[in-house]
Amino acid sequence: MIRVGIIGAGRIGQVHMRSILSGVPNAVIRAISDPMIEPDVEQFARNSGIKNIYSDYQDILDDPEIDAVLICSPTNTHARISVEAIQAGKHVFCEKPVDHEIAQIETVEKALKESGKRLKFQVGFNRRFDHNFRALRSAVQAGKIGDVQFVRVSSRDPQPPHASFIASSGGLFLDMMIHDLDMIRYLSGSEVTEVFAQGAVLIDPAIGEAGDVDTATVSARMKNGALALIDNSRQAVYGYDQRAEVFGSKGSVQNANDLPSTMVLSTVDGVTAERPLWFFLERYMSSYQAEIRSFIDCIEQDKEPEVGIEDGRMTIRIALACMRSLAENRPVRIEEIN
Amino acid sequence: MIRVGIIGAGRIGQVHMRSILSGVPNAVIRAISDPMIEPDVEQFARNSGIKNIYSDYQDILDDPEIDAVLICSPTNTHARISVEAIQAGKHVFCEKPVDHEIAQIETVEKALKESGKRLKFQVGFNRRFDHNFRALRSAVQAGKIGDVQFVRVSSRDPQPPHASFIASSGGLFLDMMIHDLDMIRYLSGSEVTEVFAQGAVLIDPAIGEAGDVDTATVSARMKNGALALIDNSRQAVYGYDQRAEVFGSKGSVQNANDLPSTMVLSTVDGVTAERPLWFFLERYMSSYQAEIRSFIDCIEQDKEPEVGIEDGRMTIRIALACMRSLAENRPVRIEEIN
Amino acid sequence: MIRVGIIGAGRIGQVHMRSILSGVPNAVIRAISDPMIEPDVEQFARNSGIKNIYSDYQDILDDPEIDAVLICSPTNTHARISVEAIQAGKHVFCEKPVDHEIAQIETVEKALKESGKRLKFQVGFNRRFDHNFRALRSAVQAGKIGDVQFVRVSSRDPQPPHASFIASSGGLFLDMMIHDLDMIRYLSGSEVTEVFAQGAVLIDPAIGEAGDVDTATVSARMKNGALALIDNSRQAVYGYDQRAEVFGSKGSVQNANDLPSTMVLSTVDGVTAERPLWFFLERYMSSYQAEIRSFIDCIEQDKEPEVGIEDGRMTIRIALACMRSLAENRPVRIEEIN
Amino acid sequence: MIRVGIIGAGRIGQVHMRSILSGVPNAVIRAISDPMIEPDVEQFARNSGIKNIYSDYQDILDDPEIDAVLICSPTNTHARISVEAIQAGKHVFCEKPVDHEIAQIETVEKALKESGKRLKFQVGFNRRFDHNFRALRSAVQAGKIGDVQFVRVSSRDPQPPHASFIASSGGLFLDMMIHDLDMIRYLSGSEVTEVFAQGAVLIDPAIGEAGDVDTATVSARMKNGALALIDNSRQAVYGYDQRAEVFGSKGSVQNANDLPSTMVLSTVDGVTAERPLWFFLERYMSSYQAEIRSFIDCIEQDKEPEVGIEDGRMTIRIALACMRSLAENRPVRIEEIN
Repeated sequence: MIRVGIIGAGRIGQVHMRSILSGVPNAVIRAISDPMIEPDVEQFARNSGIKNIYSDYQDILDDPEIDAVLICSPTNTHARISVEAIQAGKHVFCEKPVDHEIAQIETVEKALKESGKRLKFQVGFNRRFDHNFRALRSAVQAGKIGDVQFVRVSSRDPQPPHASFIASSGGLFLDMMIHDLDMIRYLSGSEVTEVFAQGAVLIDPAIGEAGDVDTATVSARMKNGALALIDNSRQAVYGYDQRAEVFGSKGSVQNANDLPSTMVLSTVDGVTAERPLWFFLERYMSSYQAEIRSFIDCIEQDKEPEVGIEDGRMTIRIALACMRSLAENRPVRIEEIN
Repeated sequence: MIRVGIIGAGRIGQVHMRSILSGVPNAVIRAISDPMIEPDVEQFARNSGIKNIYSDYQDILDDPEIDAVLICSPTNTHARISVEAIQAGKHVFCEKPVDHEIAQIETVEKALKESGKRLKFQVGFNRRFDHNFRALRSAVQAGKIGDVQFVRVSSRDPQPPHASFIASSGGLFLDMMIHDLDMIRYLSGSEVTEVFAQGAVLIDPAIGEAGDVDTATVSARMKNGALALIDNSRQAVYGYDQRAEVFGSKGSVQNANDLPSTMVLSTVDGVTAERPLWFFLERYMSSYQAEIRSFIDCIEQDKEPEVGIEDGRMTIRIALACMRSLAENRPVRIEEIN
Repeated sequence: MIRVGIIGAGRIGQVHMRSILSGVPNAVIRAISDPMIEPDVEQFARNSGIKNIYSDYQDILDDPEIDAVLICSPTNTHARISVEAIQAGKHVFCEKPVDHEIAQIETVEKALKESGKRLKFQVGFNRRFDHNFRALRSAVQAGKIGDVQFVRVSSRDPQPPHASFIASSGGLFLDMMIHDLDMIRYLSGSEVTEVFAQGAVLIDPAIGEAGDVDTATVSARMKNGALALIDNSRQAVYGYDQRAEVFGSKGSVQNANDLPSTMVLSTVDGVTAERPLWFFLERYMSSYQAEIRSFIDCIEQDKEPEVGIEDGRMTIRIALACMRSLAENRPVRIEEIN
Repeated sequence: MIRVGIIGAGRIGQVHMRSILSGVPNAVIRAISDPMIEPDVEQFARNSGIKNIYSDYQDILDDPEIDAVLICSPTNTHARISVEAIQAGKHVFCEKPVDHEIAQIETVEKALKESGKRLKFQVGFNRRFDHNFRALRSAVQAGKIGDVQFVRVSSRDPQPPHASFIASSGGLFLDMMIHDLDMIRYLSGSEVTEVFAQGAVLIDPAIGEAGDVDTATVSARMKNGALALIDNSRQAVYGYDQRAEVFGSKGSVQNANDLPSTMVLSTVDGVTAERPLWFFLERYMSSYQAEIRSFIDCIEQDKEPEVGIEDGRMTIRIALACMRSLAENRPVRIEEIN
């Protein structure tokens, strides 16, 4: 039984709390911490048998009975708390992104190396644990499409964030496309070497005024020779659009959106299926549980997590390369970003 | 907070236990009972904070702190325990079928009428709470297909039961097609008036020797004039096949199977999607939770359950009419069965 | 080069004329006949190099240069003209149905036997030559689904015929379902032994007043043990609905409707595909050409046509059995009909 | 009745010949020319009532009874013969590409301007007349997806050309992607302003040795602000893969491949649909007929053809910009190419 502390009881912290309670049999939540926990969350936690509810995450790090922490605090605290947790001897699951700056991510890597123990560190790229994307990866790894030659990811949010969110989030490439950048690595089984980005403000001028784009594409080259394309939009009015395709010498594998039901209605107006599930909480709920289950299993069985700190760092480098590409209107090699 | 006791900790009892623990926030399990509970189930129950674990269900009925019971014991005890539970003043969720004999079901109806209280009684036709079937029903009720003229249900198991199971289960019509018979009532919003059944032994001769069929069709007439067709097979080698269509004056609505993922693989061999989810526990898991959630809400809000004792009785009558039709090779009116 | 005469230049006669002109390279139309040919049809025929345009079909039968005739005249003349054509030594392609009465069909069979030559006789069950239905049959024959256990055909017209058409057409079973009755024989590779029909008037009361139904289902038993279900409606407002499924010991094969395009539109209103092609001329056009091409090839290569007079007779017997079943509300064995 | 001469009786010339014979009622083929016509093609032409079969196309241009010519000769003769035909007062349908060099295309534009008559000139971008792509365009033009923000085209051949074909064809961008470059203009209703191309040799090293790529992507910016992505592969082993998506402020519209049938086979190995139609002759056959029908209608009704010389020129400019982008690894503005 792995004893867990959750640092941060906001939206994603609550998701992980419920995931563990309902479907991670070999983990128990020993504590949660949040400087400003909401009353109903606190109530739910107490009803669910979570004994310790702290305002200061330090209490979690200080508890020798806690094996692992889930860092669900604001992004700009991820790296610092990760380092502290490692130094306190805890296994760490850190929400993505670890940080927007590579130097900060490297402090976490350093702490991991310096810790004498074999501590596990997993980054919250939950999409790797989603049934639809994992199925593609499994097919690729099983050789079903031969050598990978091309990867495509389409990722569209149902509604744009408020422009005020842009600054803290780091913008489209760091906040939204980062999942897709990780996905082309995951699906191709190879590293990105060069990117070319195009972007536009077509949905909300306020996003442009905040210095970001709301529509973007990226062309990438992979180390294994494959090409990749990504398209992002901040607003697909029909719902969260999450699709990918991997094409190779023996065939192609692609996925489609998850729907609330398989119902199809035929009338004089056409043959209509349901819209995709609305947004990431609906769409990826089971992947959040699966990633935590995998993290706990890695601790229990002393295995390497499927998404490590190097994935967190590499994905940030690619996102930063995309941003430079867009700013300078030229292809940018990943090795330029350090 | 509704306090629940679960009678029977076998497969379906465990399903309901986990459902309540993970996703029925306004219910708490106060006790479970089973004459021969398995050690790991007992362990899981204790870890999950279930205080009382009894061998005798009478202990549950005797507990004045328990508001509602879930009857998950063997079929031949359903009616008797239902009556006792009602007499003990408990709300009852009873697994389907309530009984194979109408007289027995009527004892439950009598007990309900005699109880001075407004006790809730719900039968475990979980499929009514499944997203794919409920979506059809909602579309029909919203008038999207106009007047219902035709209903079709295809229902096929991935593998046949052992022939030794036939006797206690009541055979294909009482055990398997009963869900589909309920479904044509649910989807059409009307009652069956006449059925004609055909059956064959095409899969396992031992099923025939046990006096049952493994392949069957039913043609039915509904009170509102609609026609209905059902096809059943005990063995669809590609997995659990669960589909329906409702056709009306303004269009048609149909559903398809749920799949493990939306992945599609294109190779020289064709364009291949995944097989349906294997069997009812994988396929209908979320409907089990939804039916319990609905039952608890009905108690809390003093509403009538969506599937009552009269649905349990009517469905058995139709199943018995099908069996007579098959035996006598003629259409049988439901009013013949009493 | 097979020299063809077309008897009857109405809708279906014109379809065959165009089919041969554009895509049957080893046939040439030498003459057409119609007592009241429309001027534009005559003009088109002349422009297309058809030399002889008669009002009397006898002129076609008298022409020794003509090898084969296509009988596209009204149904009640099919059998008589077939006999005359056979006696004149012509190969015959006869539109379906050959006749509504078995005795009449038997006069054609007799004529065929008495003709000393190996004359070809093909009945116009065009659906056997349709890509979607032929694909099912091929898969079944290739053993892909193992032993056939169940067949289902859904067939729905986009709009009902005028009630005045009912009498001459013979009604739903003889005019519309006859294709589906042939289809369950074709797809299962077996003969129907018993049927049970249900019918209703749910669309147009005038159809009921004319003594017919507009909605019908049939349950059938096949000689190989398989069961079959058919559903028919005279009005699917979303367009011509033509689907089938064959289920067996190793799997299932089904088809879907043909659409004008593969376009799918995603908006706030859902994810919408196009409606099926409107009616049989749009939907089955290529099958009309394929059946004539096959007929001509059979003459050229001295092979038996894929659909012979016995198929014409057997299908009528089944349709008549369905009508008796509906009238008497009981299952009817095909051998009762003679 | 428009009188047509076909210059070049190779593969595509024969396609147009058959199209006109079987489905362009207001056109008649008066002559074909080819310096080395194959005997069976000549035979077919004679049987089909084509009176004049020349070896020299000049005979066609000299015939005052001919209204329009279809130029189906080798690419490097397209521009020259177009000019001559215009000067001879003929309407011209010219196969794509008009030429690989813009200067050559401009000679045709000049000839068109100088001809006193309102001659029609149509370029053979047949895909604009394909049901699946035209449906997207119609939906976009009807405002169903609002303002276009993103366009994506995936286009993959089933098998690579022989490397010896690369030189004369102009390579992937001029020969294959040119259709997709036209398509993003057609679907977005806007012009390309800038492109960035990536390419790789992943299928056949001989293609690389011939100086071409066999896998390529293009990122483009459109004048209306939209972004576009194209992916091309010379070898999709599962068949010709032809898909597009247009995304906008009110939704998205996409198409899928055409299949030989709608059959789906479910077995223990999965749920398998058919592979796409094999290659362009199977897939786009009806679009070839539709484009000629449209061309003839434009002559008859004195309307502008849907694809003119300026489309031929613009598409070549974009293809050349892609080639420069790939060579120099930088985005290239279309205005750089003149």
